[in-house]
Amino acid sequence: MEERTEISSLGEFGLIDHLTANNETKNASTILSTGDDGAVIDHFGRQTVISTDLLLEGIHFDLSYTPLKHLGYKAVVVNVSDIYAMNATPTQIVISLAFSNRFSLEALDEFYAGVYAACETYGVDLVGGDTSTSQRGFVISITAIGEVAPDAYVKRSTAKDKDLVCVSGELGGSFLGLTLLEREKKIFEQTGAQPDLEGQAYIVGRLLKPEARKDIVEYFAEAGIMPTSMIDISDGLSSDLLHICKQSNVGCVLYEDKLPFNEEAKEFAYKLQLDPTACALSGGEDYELLFTIAQADYEKIKLNPSISVIGYITDASEGEHLITRAGNKHALIAQGWNHLAK
Amino acid sequence: MEERTEISSLGEFGLIDHLTANNETKNASTILSTGDDGAVIDHFGRQTVISTDLLLEGIHFDLSYTPLKHLGYKAVVVNVSDIYAMNATPTQIVISLAFSNRFSLEALDEFYAGVYAACETYGVDLVGGDTSTSQRGFVISITAIGEVAPDAYVKRSTAKDKDLVCVSGELGGSFLGLTLLEREKKIFEQTGAQPDLEGQAYIVGRLLKPEARKDIVEYFAEAGIMPTSMIDISDGLSSDLLHICKQSNVGCVLYEDKLPFNEEAKEFAYKLQLDPTACALSGGEDYELLFTIAQADYEKIKLNPSISVIGYITDASEGEHLITRAGNKHALIAQGWNHLAK
Repeated sequence: MEERTEISSLGEFGLIDHLTANNETKNASTILSTGDDGAVIDHFGRQTVISTDLLLEGIHFDLSYTPLKHLGYKAVVVNVSDIYAMNATPTQIVISLAFSNRFSLEALDEFYAGVYAACETYGVDLVGGDTSTSQRGFVISITAIGEVAPDAYVKRSTAKDKDLVCVSGELGGSFLGLTLLEREKKIFEQTGAQPDLEGQAYIVGRLLKPEARKDIVEYFAEAGIMPTSMIDISDGLSSDLLHICKQSNVGCVLYEDKLPFNEEAKEFAYKLQLDPTACALSGGEDYELLFTIAQADYEKIKLNPSISVIGYITDASEGEHLITRAGNKHALIAQGWNHLAK
Repeated sequence: MEERTEISSLGEFGLIDHLTANNETKNASTILSTGDDGAVIDHFGRQTVISTDLLLEGIHFDLSYTPLKHLGYKAVVVNVSDIYAMNATPTQIVISLAFSNRFSLEALDEFYAGVYAACETYGVDLVGGDTSTSQRGFVISITAIGEVAPDAYVKRSTAKDKDLVCVSGELGGSFLGLTLLEREKKIFEQTGAQPDLEGQAYIVGRLLKPEARKDIVEYFAEAGIMPTSMIDISDGLSSDLLHICKQSNVGCVLYEDKLPFNEEAKEFAYKLQLDPTACALSGGEDYELLFTIAQADYEKIKLNPSISVIGYITDASEGEHLITRAGNKHALIAQGWNHLAK
């Protein structure tokens, strides 16, 4: 039998002590960490970037197929991804949790193991937070802090006509992973059959253990590239590119045949009679970076195999379009994961 | 009939645009505000302080007697209070919300009116956030950012033997306000009788519209006082003073006859056969500042009528005690609002 320690046996402050007992800081900018009313950060000579995300059980994740360690890891990743999308380096996070009494201390430890693993991967310090009980459901709120050289941050609103539209990595995998796990969950509920995830490690991994594109932001610095605009793909390529277009007051053209796919993901999409392009455009949670660059930077981008040029920016009057493989032109519409429309 | 606009009619991004349409920044340090993956803050030459709090319906607040505008105001106050407790000045907040579809746009507007009013009072900029649907209950997560001159922040862990223990304002009012409103709610549920809050404006106000002690931190700067340790009272005087003692490795003596009470609150406590001292020690959410100063600073503190000297710090070996009016000595124990023990 697995051990189960009731969280109430420690009390709130005992719990916080337990969860932060091995918390070590990695950044010189972290002056004061957990254990006080606030943390203190010294970003002298650098600008501070801040971003926050709220994740709720039943809305953003399903604990029936999400291991808690992966959830802790992903909760950090989605936040540091926003910091990278500003062309900044994440340095600290604060994390607030609420959980019902069905959570044991061992379950929370699993979650925190994932949080600390992600802190290690991305070099960020956990510097504070809040814990509370909830009447129902697990609630995760993370705020990430980062730093950037003065005025080197990149906004969504500064893409220019004729810029190239680029994306890192491959698209649509996370959505396909979700589709697979939701399907297997239904089958399990109806028949009791164990999930068949054979050969689907890639798409399941994209959903359950995504990574933020630290490497791309580091490449920008090394190669001397300053994107003209940037966003991370959380709602889907269409929706997020339309944010750039709307906020920059420009239009765009995307080429279907330039969209980067993973072969395993593509095959799975065909198996389910889903269009891989639709998955790339409307599937969310890829946490890839979508950005625009001046044409003059094309030679520098070309050298990085993780970056695909998928289209270009136009004048706002030309609207936003996708050119299909067959050469047809379709209006680009936002069909991202709209949690509010559910 | 009151107007009711469904939030789903705007969509997530329309909602964010709506809620931030009149959002103006007040701090020169706010370089980039809402509308991007992150906000950018320039604290050159100052250190950054960060704090976060999670508030859940049914755990931290009861919407049956909490007006949404007051809730929005208070949600900001509890966060900036943590920043003041670090001897810092709050400058920015990010706010994440989750709400069910029983919330109308008008209800959210009420909440945000309170948030913006508090931002105005405390001079902070709302620079980002996240909104989501929830299956049940209203979830509020706020992270506050502040700034402080290099190494001028004040921790909990640096109180010294023989320091004076001081507190701002009056204690126990918020707990009494909660007791009153919970009592009236029960009466309403059982008999349908409208709440009788006659003459109880003070204690109800302490619960529903607390203020953070900006004035005290400003006074420290003007008077040249550097507290040796500080915390804000959210869990109750006992619990929060014990945090200082534990983290500073010291003991303390408190004098019952020095504890600051409001007369209206005291009378209400007697009416309910509650001991005002117990309310001050164990009631929470007063958001007063509890701090220690060197004895040499006593003359400076004396001049401020909002500050009471309530005891002194001892060697750790002497433990933590309360001296009653009758001269009896009792061990100080933490009986604050422990949400986890509920």
